[in-house]
Amino acid sequence: MPGPLRFRLDATCGGARAGTLDLPSGSVPTPAFMAVGTRGAVKACTSDQVAATGTGVMLGNTFHLALRPGAEVVRDGGGLARWNRWPRATLTDSGGFQVFSLAKLRAIDEQGVRFQSPYDGATLELTPERSIALQNDLGADVIMAFDECPPLPSPKEDVARAVARTTRWARRSLDAHRRPDDQALFGIVQGGTFEDLRAESAAALVPLDLPGYAIGGLSVGESADDMDRTLDGVCPLLPADKPRYLMGVGKPEDLVRAVARGVDMFDCVLPTRNARNGEVFTWPRGRLRLKHARFERDPLPIDPTCDCLACAGGVTRSYLRHLHKVGEIAGLTYASVHNLRHMQRLTETMRSRVLDGTYAAWAAAWLATPPAEGG
Amino acid sequence: MPGPLRFRLDATCGGARAGTLDLPSGSVPTPAFMAVGTRGAVKACTSDQVAATGTGVMLGNTFHLALRPGAEVVRDGGGLARWNRWPRATLTDSGGFQVFSLAKLRAIDEQGVRFQSPYDGATLELTPERSIALQNDLGADVIMAFDECPPLPSPKEDVARAVARTTRWARRSLDAHRRPDDQALFGIVQGGTFEDLRAESAAALVPLDLPGYAIGGLSVGESADDMDRTLDGVCPLLPADKPRYLMGVGKPEDLVRAVARGVDMFDCVLPTRNARNGEVFTWPRGRLRLKHARFERDPLPIDPTCDCLACAGGVTRSYLRHLHKVGEIAGLTYASVHNLRHMQRLTETMRSRVLDGTYAAWAAAWLATPPAEGG
Repeated sequence: MPGPLRFRLDATCGGARAGTLDLPSGSVPTPAFMAVGTRGAVKACTSDQVAATGTGVMLGNTFHLALRPGAEVVRDGGGLARWNRWPRATLTDSGGFQVFSLAKLRAIDEQGVRFQSPYDGATLELTPERSIALQNDLGADVIMAFDECPPLPSPKEDVARAVARTTRWARRSLDAHRRPDDQALFGIVQGGTFEDLRAESAAALVPLDLPGYAIGGLSVGESADDMDRTLDGVCPLLPADKPRYLMGVGKPEDLVRAVARGVDMFDCVLPTRNARNGEVFTWPRGRLRLKHARFERDPLPIDPTCDCLACAGGVTRSYLRHLHKVGEIAGLTYASVHNLRHMQRLTETMRSRVLDGTYAAWAAAWLATPPAEGG
Repeated sequence: MPGPLRFRLDATCGGARAGTLDLPSGSVPTPAFMAVGTRGAVKACTSDQVAATGTGVMLGNTFHLALRPGAEVVRDGGGLARWNRWPRATLTDSGGFQVFSLAKLRAIDEQGVRFQSPYDGATLELTPERSIALQNDLGADVIMAFDECPPLPSPKEDVARAVARTTRWARRSLDAHRRPDDQALFGIVQGGTFEDLRAESAAALVPLDLPGYAIGGLSVGESADDMDRTLDGVCPLLPADKPRYLMGVGKPEDLVRAVARGVDMFDCVLPTRNARNGEVFTWPRGRLRLKHARFERDPLPIDPTCDCLACAGGVTRSYLRHLHKVGEIAGLTYASVHNLRHMQRLTETMRSRVLDGTYAAWAAAWLATPPAEGG
């Protein structure tokens, strides 16, 4: 059975990979940075503005969408992509990460997690079966197994218990999946920064023969070295012919290092969150704080090399500084679109360097570039 | 000397007029509804989104822009339209209305108005000379004389004093104007709802031979009948060959009635302000409150007859209800763009009805249509 996902490796360069991910709603070149549409919309952007950045996948958060407006409402609207007018592929997370990080937890046991709704305080339960049912309703191209995400740092025995439970929950997620022909279910490798636990998690999940594997529980405060070491350990244990998704990552430099280690997919709120705080990326590597006084009359766009709506449209730092200083929404939009486009330029460049066989040298030079800090 | 403005009457139909306003930055068919970009941006919209609604003129508020970022910053950015990437014509008000309605007034005398900055409490002064200097820096195609705006209702002797002062200030505004070849200075007729004072104001201002005339001090709480009666009195006293601009108006029904009486130009924050509150216009005449529960699964666009970004793009009431309920910015953008497009459809329709000689019948039928209230 072909299933809803095909992944083709177009080239490798050392550990770095360039691939093509074919999903029911579209084809996505990898490495890919996915935009986060937490509650069904990328903050401060319309779907067509996000599409114009070249983004190939929009995420939705099952936790948020299940609470508001409810997964059945999205289902009745034709599924996430049709409902929010996103013309390409979509992915939903399992809700686990938000339950563990945002909600007031009531209890975690083998069955699942009970928590209080941050909207109205109601006690709700999320289990592997419930998460998958919600994701079947939301209807994204890629859905995620329900996992347990212990905070970092946690004692090793707690992480080990979470790994074992995540494996059992992954099996239950797979059993509960009612749309395997339409939606690709990814497993999530846990294990914190413990190499042996990551290996144990991967060894338990790979036999499930899921169409893709995610690496969860990173980018939660660990050092760059710990992230690198963990990826060095886990990526070789994942099937070479399936996509690898590093969840919640990250900064541009995180992507450059993780692609070198064999990661294909990323998502993070950082580009849009920083944008709303007036911090924008510059090429090849740097950031500007738009509110800084030195931009008061600066006639340049954020980045003269950028082709986003704002930069190509001639929106100046002077105008953007004003919009951010007085709190005009258009300033949030321009900065968000710019940062999303910057992430796409970065993944496009990484892909080109893999295809032409120069990734390692390019990445080393990029990472050695002192970040330009403006404002 | 030709000056920066040409106005051609393309047709009349009873009192209603269809014209073409040629300005340095573009040609504007009338009747025209202008979008308000208070602080240099239409709230929740990028300039290209506003342009896509068919809007021909964007306003800037001199009061706000003079305080933040300062008129010189806008001047050094190439003037308002270049700075905020607006591809068509611009208009700035004099700052008078905001000083009288928003600021903590310190003193009004023949020289001008002293007030406290709402940003930092500094005492500032606005005079006819200062207002025009600021507007010369902002660089809009149309600028406005500095006027005194007494609140409604005010005793007749106060309104009479304001009319006389507004005349003297209009002369000073004209004398202070340093860019008469680039910027068309409009006079503002005051007089509240007193017909004789309106006549006195018009009679005093028309001899200044300004390129256009505005009617100020309406849409501040008076009844529709009072507005109609005032326009019935004042429009015939204004030069037939010059554009007439009813400031701060208004609701769609206000436009339909005012065009019947000979008004050519309008501006109002109502379409975008209502949009941000989740209230959107429907054709031909009605409003929906997007947050209403009955839209939870409504698969229709706001208005199936509309060709705006949201409606033509298939954005549903279900999705918009969700965005407005959870406070996502994209919801403000879609609703704002829709309402702005609705106002353009209204002015385009009014113009067509003048051109084909059926305005009076069309307006009577439109005004007799019971407003559809949804949600």
